[in-house]
Amino acid sequence: MPYEFKMTHRVEFAETDMAGIMHFSNFFRMMEATEHAFFRSLGSSIHTEVDGQAIGWPRVSAHCDYQRPLRFEEEVSVHLLVTEVRTRSLRYLFIFRKTADNSEVARGQITAVCARMDHAKGQLSATAIPEVIRSQITAAPEEMTRAPVRS
Amino acid sequence: MPYEFKMTHRVEFAETDMAGIMHFSNFFRMMEATEHAFFRSLGSSIHTEVDGQAIGWPRVSAHCDYQRPLRFEEEVSVHLLVTEVRTRSLRYLFIFRKTADNSEVARGQITAVCARMDHAKGQLSATAIPEVIRSQITAAPEEMTRAPVRS
Amino acid sequence: MPYEFKMTHRVEFAETDMAGIMHFSNFFRMMEATEHAFFRSLGSSIHTEVDGQAIGWPRVSAHCDYQRPLRFEEEVSVHLLVTEVRTRSLRYLFIFRKTADNSEVARGQITAVCARMDHAKGQLSATAIPEVIRSQITAAPEEMTRAPVRS
Amino acid sequence: MPYEFKMTHRVEFAETDMAGIMHFSNFFRMMEATEHAFFRSLGSSIHTEVDGQAIGWPRVSAHCDYQRPLRFEEEVSVHLLVTEVRTRSLRYLFIFRKTADNSEVARGQITAVCARMDHAKGQLSATAIPEVIRSQITAAPEEMTRAPVRS
Repeated sequence: MPYEFKMTHRVEFAETDMAGIMHFSNFFRMMEATEHAFFRSLGSSIHTEVDGQAIGWPRVSAHCDYQRPLRFEEEVSVHLLVTEVRTRSLRYLFIFRKTADNSEVARGQITAVCARMDHAKGQLSATAIPEVIRSQITAAPEEMTRAPVRS
Repeated sequence: MPYEFKMTHRVEFAETDMAGIMHFSNFFRMMEATEHAFFRSLGSSIHTEVDGQAIGWPRVSAHCDYQRPLRFEEEVSVHLLVTEVRTRSLRYLFIFRKTADNSEVARGQITAVCARMDHAKGQLSATAIPEVIRSQITAAPEEMTRAPVRS
Repeated sequence: MPYEFKMTHRVEFAETDMAGIMHFSNFFRMMEATEHAFFRSLGSSIHTEVDGQAIGWPRVSAHCDYQRPLRFEEEVSVHLLVTEVRTRSLRYLFIFRKTADNSEVARGQITAVCARMDHAKGQLSATAIPEVIRSQITAAPEEMTRAPVRS
Repeated sequence: MPYEFKMTHRVEFAETDMAGIMHFSNFFRMMEATEHAFFRSLGSSIHTEVDGQAIGWPRVSAHCDYQRPLRFEEEVSVHLLVTEVRTRSLRYLFIFRKTADNSEVARGQITAVCARMDHAKGQLSATAIPEVIRSQITAAPEEMTRAPVRS
């Protein structure tokens, strides 16, 4: 059962800021893009309908620890690991490494809750993760998700 | 000595996503915008020179807990509180409240480190917070920064 | 009848790029934010319902000529002028000026079409501008919208 | 001599807006990303040094005509064509087509000027395109850049 996914991203000019590095908010967009690609890899989509009901995954919390900056045109690999599967929510760890030297640049976490979306009323309400999705996902082995000892 | 700052922001169309709410990454941009306005309120700038040396504030960590969504054109107040002043870094708490009903929608934290920026070499290196800035900032009283009991 | 609106914006750090200036794509976001504030100034919203039908304004074309860069923390005024009112579309001119010296930094144009939005089907279809909006807007006098002679 | 380049992009969730489609400003970011990939395909970079001088390409103008919306997870191909090579500037045409059915969704143009960047002074000044770059680029045949007859 899948618990991980990897994708790479090249830092775009529009993602940099005047300090010459990728703006810190873009790490969160990369985490989300990887989460969505993970869902596609399962033959699903983060934005789907189950029993005629639109399902979305609003964020409950998001976190990132930054170790090194990323610069324009550098390629970074994002390694998603599922760290917790609950009835209504999923928790992910994301490890960012520069492709050039495999050095870790950042580590993030996102907790997302499964929600029914009512566009007409503009409301989101938490719901159990649909079986078609939940049956495919499991938590990664604990040794994969431990933070490395910082040298 | 200042330890807080407030500013308001109206959710722009470009900040929403297809779920009809403000994209979660934009909370981090709002935190940073408030931090920068806080520095301006001190007569300084987050991007300045001290003794002919360019100083910046790269992020060490960023966190956000989301309680309620924000929608297009809603006005939100961002309340910055300094929670820790260290030799080389500052830690902030940000409390987001809807202007309409004063309800809390999110709570974030950022730790930023003071760094000398060498544009020619493209490098950032941590340094002591310049006295001109540090002498103006203090940590907020602890009772202001405690999380409220969730009802 | 209103044909113009002005708002100011301070360049945020996240809007800059590694060239040290505001990224060119953000001028388009500023144009749109000004358009939406213009609608609010009329007591309406760009995202509204008319006769129980959701109305939106997808862009048909967008253009910007850049004359000078904008830098972090600079304040810019955006002057919206309605240049054409058609049955199903509106055309705007936007003039960007630095608040500090009133110098023109950029000039943009947007043509937006009024559309009914069907969220269930995910479709947009052009429609006549609702009378409640159209009755309030007129085109600006031609002499206000001519480009200045470049020195 | 190269005059074209193609790359594909999948619409990310963060690029959508509450109308359920990709926000129009993101077409400009995609044009630029394609331009930069074109430079990389020539063994160069949009952000480079020539004779110890940092060279950048600020935009003089940007334009986009929108024909159809793009939705979340749709794949789009961006076809860059060089339409004009001048002493100090390049002009590009970008044709956006949905990968699924090859239908044209948008058409954009960017004019970029070659500039020396002085980070210390924060200045950009137009300069002749370096020979190492200019010798590699030519304008596309005119028949490739004509707009199609709209059906």
